[in-house]
Amino acid sequence: MEKNKTILLGHGSGGRMSHELTEQLFLKYFGRPDDGFLTDAALLEPEGNLLAFTTDSFVVDPVFFPGGDIGKLAVCGTVNDLCVAGASPAYLTAGFIIEEGFPLSQLETIVKSMALCASEAGVKIIAGDTKVVHKHKCDKIFINTSGIGILERRYAHLSKGTHITPGDKIIINGFLADHGLTVMTAREALSIRYNGTSDCAPLNHLIRCAMDAGDIHFMRDATRGGLAAIVTELVDRKTFGIELHENKIPLRENTKGLCEMLGFDPLQIANEGKVMMVVASSDAEKIVAAMQKHPYGKDSCIIGEITDQHPGTAVLNTIIGGKRIIDMPAGELLPRIC
Amino acid sequence: MEKNKTILLGHGSGGRMSHELTEQLFLKYFGRPDDGFLTDAALLEPEGNLLAFTTDSFVVDPVFFPGGDIGKLAVCGTVNDLCVAGASPAYLTAGFIIEEGFPLSQLETIVKSMALCASEAGVKIIAGDTKVVHKHKCDKIFINTSGIGILERRYAHLSKGTHITPGDKIIINGFLADHGLTVMTAREALSIRYNGTSDCAPLNHLIRCAMDAGDIHFMRDATRGGLAAIVTELVDRKTFGIELHENKIPLRENTKGLCEMLGFDPLQIANEGKVMMVVASSDAEKIVAAMQKHPYGKDSCIIGEITDQHPGTAVLNTIIGGKRIIDMPAGELLPRIC
Repeated sequence: MEKNKTILLGHGSGGRMSHELTEQLFLKYFGRPDDGFLTDAALLEPEGNLLAFTTDSFVVDPVFFPGGDIGKLAVCGTVNDLCVAGASPAYLTAGFIIEEGFPLSQLETIVKSMALCASEAGVKIIAGDTKVVHKHKCDKIFINTSGIGILERRYAHLSKGTHITPGDKIIINGFLADHGLTVMTAREALSIRYNGTSDCAPLNHLIRCAMDAGDIHFMRDATRGGLAAIVTELVDRKTFGIELHENKIPLRENTKGLCEMLGFDPLQIANEGKVMMVVASSDAEKIVAAMQKHPYGKDSCIIGEITDQHPGTAVLNTIIGGKRIIDMPAGELLPRIC
Repeated sequence: MEKNKTILLGHGSGGRMSHELTEQLFLKYFGRPDDGFLTDAALLEPEGNLLAFTTDSFVVDPVFFPGGDIGKLAVCGTVNDLCVAGASPAYLTAGFIIEEGFPLSQLETIVKSMALCASEAGVKIIAGDTKVVHKHKCDKIFINTSGIGILERRYAHLSKGTHITPGDKIIINGFLADHGLTVMTAREALSIRYNGTSDCAPLNHLIRCAMDAGDIHFMRDATRGGLAAIVTELVDRKTFGIELHENKIPLRENTKGLCEMLGFDPLQIANEGKVMMVVASSDAEKIVAAMQKHPYGKDSCIIGEITDQHPGTAVLNTIIGGKRIIDMPAGELLPRIC
């Protein structure tokens, strides 16, 4: 690390700068996973059992937004990191850092929201910690959730994507960019309106339906950095590429409008209830049909495929017939959306 | 919760206000543990294996202090919460919340310190997360560590204290109050000097020596709220009481001096490398002898015993021959010491 460098917002973006910080600092000292795969949840195997273990801190601003709050987000985020690894989320911890003077009634709303979401997901919050700091030493409330999920051995390949083959179809479970745009426009300082709500949801039951319907080769939830971050990470240094079809990607008209106005790429905007799946071509229709029956999957569809044509590159086939290379967001597009 | 109440620093103190917040808010919504015991680490049993799972957030100010830094503290804190439950700490996660502009070189020092301490403790840091917030939206850096430990079934009683019997001896592994006083006096605004260093240390190897030497009935690390918080929590609504002997409690002369000057009770000051054990009377001397051979236990000694004389009360037999009821610290004595 160069001596005078400082942390920039982009280091927390989930984009290229986050990636560099992880590679050059955290993995340097904490070591890489034994199998070399960097996934959302670490897999553990104490005496024969396979567990997934993950952590996430939430600093969303504002704390309350249409469709959710920091508590719901904290539970969903960790539940989703576990279930995209193929695990059944089982236990969560909750660590609170709270600013002195934060209203107890708001804390109660947040805690209730966490309990409700945990109950929906079928996970137990079993350990916690609270720290309080002086006024202006943190911004209202930050929550860390860590989680353990139980993983059947036959799904251990899922988070690594080792079964991905050219021809595999790519599925998304609905409209993109709602979370990022909702949180951004919910900030008091902004006068822009977005007629939407966050998609924040625990995806484990939906994912279970999909897993039961057919052969899934990879899953990841499209949070910070959006769908763009997942596909570019997935093809990085691989022998396959990805083709996405813009005309098939579910985007609301108001999403397109706001992104055009602000110069945002909707593929780079965060979601909190969207999972991208890579599935066996022969099972793709079955899986989509099963997902469409679930409330969090009713707009599921196939948006692209794995290809051997341009290894290492994710390409968007645009509506006007062109091709565009999908890039990882470089810095921080929207700070503190989760 | 009353509507206009706000979070006060005391809610994060580890004392009575923290206790109330946990009881009246977190347990209300997240539920109580099935067995009713509130311990430092939750015990899990996925398909026959017994695991301990815990979380802790660290907001210490200053980030660097004599004897350690926030990174070492974050690893020790979670390692110690696991090993006092009788578990062998195995895996940690690390969640960073960093203020924009924080020097990367300092982050590197902290990460190195975490790696070193994890290596000493024999635990692996296997998952992580980084969030960055704008300047003045957090104070430099906060770290959450969550951890999993593997627990032999014969030690499952340890964190609950169900084997505690009148006559059991109480052991401490050395001098009290060094961490709290060191961190407090390391703050720039204070001109008071304390000629000491934090006792911050991973206690798992020491505790393993003690467990191998004799029959332990209960352990807890004396962090926020100090030894006073542990003994008062331990006797609460129990059929036994505790007697401590002031003349046996290891206190440095400079600790006594500074506490007298500031009006602090050294029993209420935080430690980060001290464990209180309740052990079978017949094994107490053997356990102390084993602990004294370990660098983190060389000043171990017996400081009291379990009694059936005053159930529910912890009493200090003072040097001048009096008796004083030990009380849980009410609010926040020293904010942000961990």
